[in-house]
Parts: sequence; C-alpha cells; structure tokens
Amino acid sequence: MNTFKMNATVRGAAGIVGKKEHEGPLGGYFDMYDATDKFGADTWEKAESEMQRRALTVAIKKANVDEKAVGSLFAGDLQNQCVGSAYGLLDFGIPYFGLYGACSTAAEGMILASALVTHGVLEYSAAVTSSHYCSAERQYRTPLEYGSQRPPTAQWTVTGAGAFVIGPPSAGDVRITEALPGIVVEKGIRDANNMGAAMAPAALSTLLRYFDLSDMIPEDFDMIVTGDLGYEGGALLSDLAAAEGLRLSGVYNDCGMMIFNRAGQDVHSGGSGCGCSAVVMADYIIPRLKEGKLRRVLFLGTGAMMSPSSVQQGCAIPAIAHLVRLEAPEV
Amino acid sequence: MNTFKMNATVRGAAGIVGKKEHEGPLGGYFDMYDATDKFGADTWEKAESEMQRRALTVAIKKANVDEKAVGSLFAGDLQNQCVGSAYGLLDFGIPYFGLYGACSTAAEGMILASALVTHGVLEYSAAVTSSHYCSAERQYRTPLEYGSQRPPTAQWTVTGAGAFVIGPPSAGDVRITEALPGIVVEKGIRDANNMGAAMAPAALSTLLRYFDLSDMIPEDFDMIVTGDLGYEGGALLSDLAAAEGLRLSGVYNDCGMMIFNRAGQDVHSGGSGCGCSAVVMADYIIPRLKEGKLRRVLFLGTGAMMSPSSVQQGCAIPAIAHLVRLEAPEV
Repeated sequence: MNTFKMNATVRGAAGIVGKKEHEGPLGGYFDMYDATDKFGADTWEKAESEMQRRALTVAIKKANVDEKAVGSLFAGDLQNQCVGSAYGLLDFGIPYFGLYGACSTAAEGMILASALVTHGVLEYSAAVTSSHYCSAERQYRTPLEYGSQRPPTAQWTVTGAGAFVIGPPSAGDVRITEALPGIVVEKGIRDANNMGAAMAPAALSTLLRYFDLSDMIPEDFDMIVTGDLGYEGGALLSDLAAAEGLRLSGVYNDCGMMIFNRAGQDVHSGGSGCGCSAVVMADYIIPRLKEGKLRRVLFLGTGAMMSPSSVQQGCAIPAIAHLVRLEAPEV
Repeated sequence: MNTFKMNATVRGAAGIVGKKEHEGPLGGYFDMYDATDKFGADTWEKAESEMQRRALTVAIKKANVDEKAVGSLFAGDLQNQCVGSAYGLLDFGIPYFGLYGACSTAAEGMILASALVTHGVLEYSAAVTSSHYCSAERQYRTPLEYGSQRPPTAQWTVTGAGAFVIGPPSAGDVRITEALPGIVVEKGIRDANNMGAAMAPAALSTLLRYFDLSDMIPEDFDMIVTGDLGYEGGALLSDLAAAEGLRLSGVYNDCGMMIFNRAGQDVHSGGSGCGCSAVVMADYIIPRLKEGKLRRVLFLGTGAMMSPSSVQQGCAIPAIAHLVRLEAPEV
C-alpha cells in the first residue's frame, strides 16, 4: 500500500453559506450567503440543493473553464439518498458520481477527482458537497420546532455548500500532490451527539498510516486540518496522537473550530456537516495557500457513517478520515 | 468528452442472495443463500451488512489474492447513510470510498475501481453493493407488516449482495475495456412505484452518448443489459431507443427481468435494488463471459436517486445510468 501520488491543481473553489456562518469569524471570506438560509427555496432540503447549484456555478466561473469541459462531478451530502446533490446538480448535464462519505465527502471527492485528472482520464473534474442545519437536524435528530436540548459534545451542522474544480498542473494554482483514502474505524462510541469522539480514532488511523508511508513529519506542514472533529474530537485526536508519539500541537486545527465563534455563537463543540470543511477549505485555506501564506497543508476530511436507524439498533458509530495534501503554487 | 478507456479484469466476483432469489430462474448460480433472509443477524439492516461481508469474502477468495492486496473498496447501498456498506465491510481494514448511486452502484463502483487499476494507482480494487427487500420496503415505502398493496409497475427489491475484485490484465479473466459515467436525468416521473419509467430515459441518455462517442453499434454486443429497469422500464427503453433509431431488440435484456420468474413469483414489474444487477452480473453474466458463451456485453447500471422525503415534497425522480463494457478473456 502506497499513498496516491497526485499531480493536479485546484482551478476554482467556492463556498456558499447561511446566516450563522456569515456571522462567524470567517464570514467575510465566503462567496455568498443568504440571511434567511432558504436561498429562494420553499423547503430546507431544496435550499440545500440550491446552495450546491450556486457553489458549483461560482467554482466553474472562478476556474475560468467552460462548463462542458468538466468531465465529471463527485458529489454527496447528508440527506437520505444524497438528494441534496442529485437535485442540486441536475442542471449541469455533467457525468455524475454519487458519493456517501458523511462529513468526509469534500476530501473523498477531491481525491477521486484529482486521481482522474492526474492520470488524464479527464482534463477537469469537480467535487461538490453540502449540509444544511435545518435539513440535517430534522433528519438525524429532531425537528427544530421540537426545541430539543443539545449536550456539550454536540456539534452544529454548518449550512453551507462547497465546490472544487480540479484540473491539470497550472502555474499559480494550488496543487494537490498526494492523498490517502481512509479505512473505516469503529471504536465503540454509541452517542450520536458525540461524533467527534467517534471520528478522532479514524483521523488518527489515517495520520499514522500517512506518516508511516511517507517520509514527512508533522512539522513539514504549516497546518494539519481536520474537518470536522470540533473541540471535543480535536482534543481527543491531539491526545491520541501524542500517545502514539505524534505531536500535532502548533500545526493542528479543525474546520469545525474555525468556522464559528465558540464563546458567542452557542455552537457547543463547534461546526460539523459536509459543508463545514468544504467551505472552510474552499474559501479560507485554499486561498491562503494560493497567496503563499500557507505553503503545505494536510487536510483530513472526517466522517461519521452512522444513520438514525443504526443508532436506534444499538450499533456503534463507524468513522472514516480521507487525507489530501495541498501545496502552494510552484514559484 | 470521451469514454473511459479501461484495461482491467474481473479477478473474482460473488453473489449472496435470499430465499426468493434462490427460487428464481438463476437460483442455482449464486454462491450462497439463506432461506431465512436473516444471515444470522437480528435485524434486516444487519442481515444486509452480513451479505456484503460474505460477498466480498467470497470474491476475494475467488480472485485468489491476499485481502491486504486490495487497495480500496467502492461500496454503497440503499439504506439511509449507506450503513449496509459501512458496517458490512468494517472487518476488512481496506481503504473505503463510500458511494451513493442507488441501483447503479455496482456499475459506478466497477468504473471507479477499474479506473484506479487501469492507471496503476492500485493493483487491486473492489466494488461491493447490496439491497435487502425487508430493509428497503420499510425505509422507502411501508413496513412489511402493514401489508400494503403493490401496483403493477412496482419492482421487487432483491435481497442480495454482490462483490467484484478488479485487477490488472490477466489471461483467462473477463476484461473491462471501456466505461462511460452517466448524467443525471429527470423527466417528470413522480411515482416512486414506477422507477422503471424514471430510469429508462437515463439509460437512453447514456446509450445514445456511448454510441455517439464510440464506433460501435448495438449489434457488436451479444448483450446490452440494464440493471434494473424491470419489465415496465425495459419496454420503455426499447421504445425510446427505437424512436432514436437505435434498435436494441435481440440483444437487450435486464437483470430485473432475469432474476425472478414473472409468472410464478408475484414480482409485478421484476427485480430492483442495488443487489439485483450486482448478483446477476457477478454470478451469471460474468461467468458466461469467462466461459466464452458471451463475447461482449454492455452493462448499464441504472439508479433512481429520489428519497422518501423528496417524493413527499413533490419532486420528480432524478435517475442515472453508468455504462461498463465487458469482454470475454483474450484468446
């Protein structure tokens, strides 16, 4: 087993968010937001699809390529049967690979799109994903009208969609140079309100495999960023990694910690949802790489792969973490 | 846009089915069945996972490769959040790409696994999928205990799991030589009990694109097999294709028509579910290619991408068809 050697670039990336995300610390970076969270739609589910449609539209525009040149989409979301993506991307007429990776979908899509581009199967490919607080809450937990209380370990599903257009090597564009798909890990966590604890061992598993297979060390990276373990899972990952002799402190961060203001936005353990890492990567991390403010980033997309039914049937939560290595443009 | 040129082989394929599938016309071909449909599990959902575990175990054994040599799994199913696959494949410790392609998942997984193998990203990869009549009915429609009536256009979800281990060129093994991912198509069908009508236009779309891009004609194939349009959708596809000047008669068949005895098994419009095309391809079509009884087959995995929520919200059904070209071993 080796890592995937990649030779692709991020030609365009876009993030569309809701009101709360716009009010967070990264609010000014996102391409578009809607203060009603509805995006002109009459249901939360359709609003989520509309965010995907807008995210891919903006990403293609930024990539400055013809829509017809995009040879495939890799897309998925948290809604049952991934209908957020199926409906959201219907207008494009681009070959479609449906993914289910829970909150790891952005990373999973980036890996597969980059692999097809690296090997010349397609010139351009795209990864798209989304989540919506209101559609996720009523599907996974309870309808918002119910007013259910949230425990301190709960994460807040981000209302957001991100899209990435991946293309061949190109001067001035952020490079995807390596990747490592995750192995599903299940360590006995049964609390669907503590997904960080379920996902931290998956993130550790992929990190340990990566540093074992590569000749890199954590200090070689300006940032090792998970998406999204939140405060609970992020602290667990740091502890678990330290116990394995891997010191992440200094370079470690998490998209779920970055997107909201913990003190002022009542989000408990931070952000989550496929849209969280997608919009933070698209509109914050990748632009900083492009500007050279960051030189080398390891992005670990983490996902908790349970369903409400599997939790009700007493199953523990399986989790995964897909790794993507991103680098600043060659100078 | 070109088709994907592939250079891979099916090293091992396996199908695990339930009682009704075992009693059907292809019953004798499947690797394993359980007359209780429970596979030792205490819920239908867990039974489905157990079928996947067994299917991949048998496929790896038939491929005669070490489990560790399989570099990735592409897997998905119909259960919410694809938990049939997440739990079913947990034991393997193989990097995992979660897919959601509804009933097209077998074809989608074969395309992505073959692409990674063709370009040397991995030596071996696998595609796995499943469906279970009892888990699908209670999730998509009503619990079986409710005794709901089925309209004549309804298809019967197959209880079955199929797995395919894909590897590099090898004498004596069935070849995957070309593929074309589908574009999502939605033609206004809103009846979740008539998925054949929703999927037939997607199958037509992919077939027309394929025959436009390639220099092949339908007569070049011993079989053009969809999975699964059933009788209703299959008849529609033949009519739609004829209207476009594409004559499929003589070579056309459908996994959903093949797996059950229409007269005697009370399945109305035929079989459906991710497991249907997976087990028919794994244990019937691919072995016939291997024996040289079929020389060249076009497999179109078709999927209806709606959810119960999207249907309740009045949305029409988006559908997709992924194409895989399979050929007998080189002589």
